[in-house]
Amino acid sequence: MPELRRDPITGRWVIIATERAKRPSDFKIDPTVPHGAFCPFCYGNEDKTPPEVLAYRAGDPQPDAPGWSVRVVPNKFPALMIEGGLGREGEGLYDRMNGVGAHEVIVETPDHARQMADLSEREFESVLWAYRDRILDLKRDTRFRYVMIFKNHGAAAGASVEHTHSQLIALPIVPKTVLEEMKGALEYYNHKERCVYCDIIRQEQQDCRRVIYENGSFIVLAPFAPLFPFETWVLPRAHDSAFEDCQREEYALLANAMLTTLRKLKTALSAPPYNFMLHMSPFNEQDNPHYHWHFEILPTLTKMAGFEWGSGFYINPTPPEEAARFLREVNT
Amino acid sequence: MPELRRDPITGRWVIIATERAKRPSDFKIDPTVPHGAFCPFCYGNEDKTPPEVLAYRAGDPQPDAPGWSVRVVPNKFPALMIEGGLGREGEGLYDRMNGVGAHEVIVETPDHARQMADLSEREFESVLWAYRDRILDLKRDTRFRYVMIFKNHGAAAGASVEHTHSQLIALPIVPKTVLEEMKGALEYYNHKERCVYCDIIRQEQQDCRRVIYENGSFIVLAPFAPLFPFETWVLPRAHDSAFEDCQREEYALLANAMLTTLRKLKTALSAPPYNFMLHMSPFNEQDNPHYHWHFEILPTLTKMAGFEWGSGFYINPTPPEEAARFLREVNT
Repeated sequence: MPELRRDPITGRWVIIATERAKRPSDFKIDPTVPHGAFCPFCYGNEDKTPPEVLAYRAGDPQPDAPGWSVRVVPNKFPALMIEGGLGREGEGLYDRMNGVGAHEVIVETPDHARQMADLSEREFESVLWAYRDRILDLKRDTRFRYVMIFKNHGAAAGASVEHTHSQLIALPIVPKTVLEEMKGALEYYNHKERCVYCDIIRQEQQDCRRVIYENGSFIVLAPFAPLFPFETWVLPRAHDSAFEDCQREEYALLANAMLTTLRKLKTALSAPPYNFMLHMSPFNEQDNPHYHWHFEILPTLTKMAGFEWGSGFYINPTPPEEAARFLREVNT
Repeated sequence: MPELRRDPITGRWVIIATERAKRPSDFKIDPTVPHGAFCPFCYGNEDKTPPEVLAYRAGDPQPDAPGWSVRVVPNKFPALMIEGGLGREGEGLYDRMNGVGAHEVIVETPDHARQMADLSEREFESVLWAYRDRILDLKRDTRFRYVMIFKNHGAAAGASVEHTHSQLIALPIVPKTVLEEMKGALEYYNHKERCVYCDIIRQEQQDCRRVIYENGSFIVLAPFAPLFPFETWVLPRAHDSAFEDCQREEYALLANAMLTTLRKLKTALSAPPYNFMLHMSPFNEQDNPHYHWHFEILPTLTKMAGFEWGSGFYINPTPPEEAARFLREVNT
């Protein structure tokens, strides 16, 4: 069973994968599956993954067989285990608990040759519905407090399988980065009685220098203080704290905004590796006036180094005004 | 002038390097200087760096000429500029200030062919004295609140110059990671009236499973909740909040502990890229009972991916008990 452990100084939790422990010699192997190797996410290989937890199919709904457009399966090498209790315990001044959680893979298309930026808006929208359906299901498990939905594209961004996919990890604790954002947003709200993200959107719409794209419901921004070059946020224009409570027509507009952004990044930066993450409120405070769900997209262009690790302070060589201008001008 | 910008939600500051702005096409260039290219840190090339701010020389002390063993120069491409005032200002809900700070390079040996792990204990000790002398000098500049001393070894760990060197960045603000550690350590102290690091050392010495090495003044540990495989901390055994106030003989023992650790990592992990960072108290609270200065060493074995970026939660595939056992058993 993997273990969750808490740093006694900063309170940060880590997942220690005790059962698939890596020895020193294991780190020499490049984990990326080579192009052309057997792919468990391809059409016809449905029996090579654990049984699906969700799939969208036209016609006869036969599980774990071809005919699907989007398919969600448990990760074959999960960071956390779905079975068992939390088993919280102390050990002197240290705290640990069982590594209980869900770790699932959202296969975005049966076609191995396509990247996420190559999907149609309708196909992309289906992936967003799959995110939503999985969140709604996992919320019912009272052991979980948060679901992190994310995508790693390219080996440099941590992808170990080439076939385009996203992942989700449901956690028994609210992770540090989410707590920090929630706390900052709540403090701002307590002070001003306005959502800080709503205020950012208003200011950016007046200023325009950091706006990359806008449609009827979504705005795409280069944030004022980005950690990384070409960091990009996609936010609903109207206040909303829960991704999974969007109106039906909003998922189509979100697909349009996300796809436009991924295509602009692909063109401007020659198909870079990237990560994206869905930031939303924890399960126990989903409907609130202070937090504003959004996606953050990080192209992998620079490396973390000692200064960043030691200080949590990032050196970004591309001002967001420049990044936004480049991306605005790219046609997709 | 580079700019410091503050994220309005989390309060995290970033350095935006506005003057050497990178355009999209700049990211395709590998910044590592190829082996055998001209090296400004080599013996005889002293006029190819900005004038030195410190050097240790035997005999005739002629600056910016050969004869040195350790040499400190301003970074030719600094992330921050040494001249000017802080110029704090707001822009709607955003905050910014001038990117004022010092960015220096500590060239650890004139010999291009040697890595830091190849230095003798006496040579390593000289590098530590250079760290100390620069901290004592920069503390006198009232604009600065912190000095981050760090090393990037290998291109994957962010090194852009091959010749072995460390860096320091003096900052007008206390960085986020340091604030978090100080806050956690102070809360523990307020609760228990003991330093949390002293308590960790006591518990680890009794437990032994995560102890890698010990000498008269220093202990080397795999921390209980490491973010990364083979993350290693080097701490003074007795309470001490200020690195630069060590007793004279302690620098020799620190050189022994650091060098032993770097050599063990080099052997166990086939000369991995790595970062190390000196963690110490901010300038305005240097002598305190709650914080305990130390070095953290992070071999670059895994990649940050979407889950880590979004959650601040790390998946570590090597339990620290395993890592410590491997490193204890490596002879150096």
